Amino acid sequence: MENHAMDNQITSVSNPRIKFLVELRKKAKQREKTGSLVIEGTRLFMDTPEKYILEIYVTPRWIRNASARERARLRGRPFTMVTEEVMAKAADTGTPQGILCVAKIPSWTRENLLGAGRNTHCTTPLLLILEDIQDPGNLGTMFRTAEAAGATGILMSRGTVDLFNPKVVRATMSAVFRMPFLVSDDLCADISALQKDGIRVYAAHLGGTRPYDALPLTQGTAFLIGNEGNGLSEKTAEAADEKTIIPMAGATESLNAAMAAGILLFEAARQRRMP
Amino acid sequence: MENHAMDNQITSVSNPRIKFLVELRKKAKQREKTGSLVIEGTRLFMDTPEKYILEIYVTPRWIRNASARERARLRGRPFTMVTEEVMAKAADTGTPQGILCVAKIPSWTRENLLGAGRNTHCTTPLLLILEDIQDPGNLGTMFRTAEAAGATGILMSRGTVDLFNPKVVRATMSAVFRMPFLVSDDLCADISALQKDGIRVYAAHLGGTRPYDALPLTQGTAFLIGNEGNGLSEKTAEAADEKTIIPMAGATESLNAAMAAGILLFEAARQRRMP
Repeated sequence: MENHAMDNQITSVSNPRIKFLVELRKKAKQREKTGSLVIEGTRLFMDTPEKYILEIYVTPRWIRNASARERARLRGRPFTMVTEEVMAKAADTGTPQGILCVAKIPSWTRENLLGAGRNTHCTTPLLLILEDIQDPGNLGTMFRTAEAAGATGILMSRGTVDLFNPKVVRATMSAVFRMPFLVSDDLCADISALQKDGIRVYAAHLGGTRPYDALPLTQGTAFLIGNEGNGLSEKTAEAADEKTIIPMAGATESLNAAMAAGILLFEAARQRRMP
Repeated sequence: MENHAMDNQITSVSNPRIKFLVELRKKAKQREKTGSLVIEGTRLFMDTPEKYILEIYVTPRWIRNASARERARLRGRPFTMVTEEVMAKAADTGTPQGILCVAKIPSWTRENLLGAGRNTHCTTPLLLILEDIQDPGNLGTMFRTAEAAGATGILMSRGTVDLFNPKVVRATMSAVFRMPFLVSDDLCADISALQKDGIRVYAAHLGGTRPYDALPLTQGTAFLIGNEGNGLSEKTAEAADEKTIIPMAGATESLNAAMAAGILLFEAARQRRMP
C-alpha cells in the first residue's frame, strides 16, 4: 500500500463527495450536468480506457486482494481510500467489489460513427440505429455485441433508456467507452443524412420481404431496431431504404431486440470477412 | 361472465390452494414432485399449448378487460375466480395481470430432441448443449431464440439454472412448451451418444480456430455453450468434435452466452435455407 498515491481518505457516509457519487449514480441529470458517470467493479476499472477515468475510490480490502496487474493500474494515480461502509453507500451493487470510479462520458462526432479514427483495416460504416430501446440489459448487450461485430457506431433516439444508467454500463462490459454513439433528436432526419452519405438503412421488421442474409452488407450499412414491445414506429420504418426480415421457424413471434441486432450485425461481419 | 364455467372461488390468501401455488412458484422441489409449474400473465396463457394447462386462476378485472380472443380461450374451461388480493399473493410479478395457470411440465424423449415429431419439413438435428448456464434471462432467451432458428432440441447439464423458475419461463415467451429439452447427468456421455448418431458437436470456444461460418452446418449439428463466467469446462470442451470461434473485432473479450448461441444457430439456419 505504501507505493500508492493515496491522497485522500473518506470514512463518513455523510461526506459530501459520497453524496455526490450517489447522485451521479442515480440521476441522469447529474450525469448530463457534469459529463461524467460512476463505474463500479474491478472489471470496468481495468477495461475502461485510462483517459476516461477521473477519480478512483477503493477500500483497503480491494488493495489487499488485488492482483499485480490490478495494483499496477492503480499505481501512480491519485485515489481516495474509503471504508467498506462508505463503499456500500456509494455503490449500486449489493456486494460491492471495493472499487468505484468517476469516469468521463465519451463524446463522439458524426465522423466517428462512420468509422473515422478507428485503428482497424475495415472502416466501411456499419451502424445500429435504435428507436426507444427500454431495457437496460438489451442496450448494454447491443453495445457489447456491436463492438464485437466490428460496428462503427450506434445512433439512439432520445427516447432510448439512458446509456449511463449503471445497469446499462455494466452490461456493455466497457464497450460504452469504445463504441462511438450519438443521441438523435430527429431519427428520420438523421437517417436521411446517412442515406445521402451512401449508407443503406435496413429496418428489422416482421413486414420485411428480403431476408437479412440476402442483403449486400459489405457496403455502408445501418440496421434500424425498434422498441422491445412495440417495434419500430411506422414513420421510422418508412424512412429506411428497405424492410428486412430474419426468417423464423416455430411459433415464435419475434426475437429479443438485442438478439435481432446481434444476428444482423454478425451477418454483416460474416459477409465482410468473406474473400 | 355468465358464459364462463367458474367452478370455484377463492377469497382468502390463506386458502391452502394459494399456499400451494406460492410453493409451486418458489420451489423447484415442489415443481419436480408434481411435474407442474406456475405460468403468469395473459401472453403465456394465450401462447401455451392448451394440453399443458391444468388449472386457471383469474380475477374479475381480467375477465372484464379481456379481449374476445382471450375470453374465447377461457370459455368452456374450468377456472377459479380469485380476488385481487389473492392474485397478488399467488403471483410473482409486482403488478399481476390477473391470470395465472398451473401448467404441466412437458416431457420429451431423446428422439424429440433430434427432431422426431416436428411438423416442419426440416428435421435434420440442430441442438444446443448447455453447460451450467446460470442467468435465468440467458436460458430463457436461448429457448426463444432456438425455437426461432429451427433448433430441434436443447440438452442442459444438471447444473443449469432451473428451467421452470418463473423468470426463465417468462423470458422463453412460451417456447419452453414447444422446444424439446432434456437434462443431462453426464454431459460427456450424452455428447458421445449424439456423436454416434452422426451429429457433429461444436464447442463455442475462444480457443477455436475454424470460424463458425466455415463449418458445414447443414448436417446434424450441436453447439456446446458454456457457463457465463467460466466458459466450458475443459472436459466438456474436449468431448466436442471441434472447437469453433466467432471472430470478434475490438477489445471485446467475449459475447453474452445467449448471443453466442443465437449467432451460431442462425448461421445454421442460414446455411440450411440456402438452395
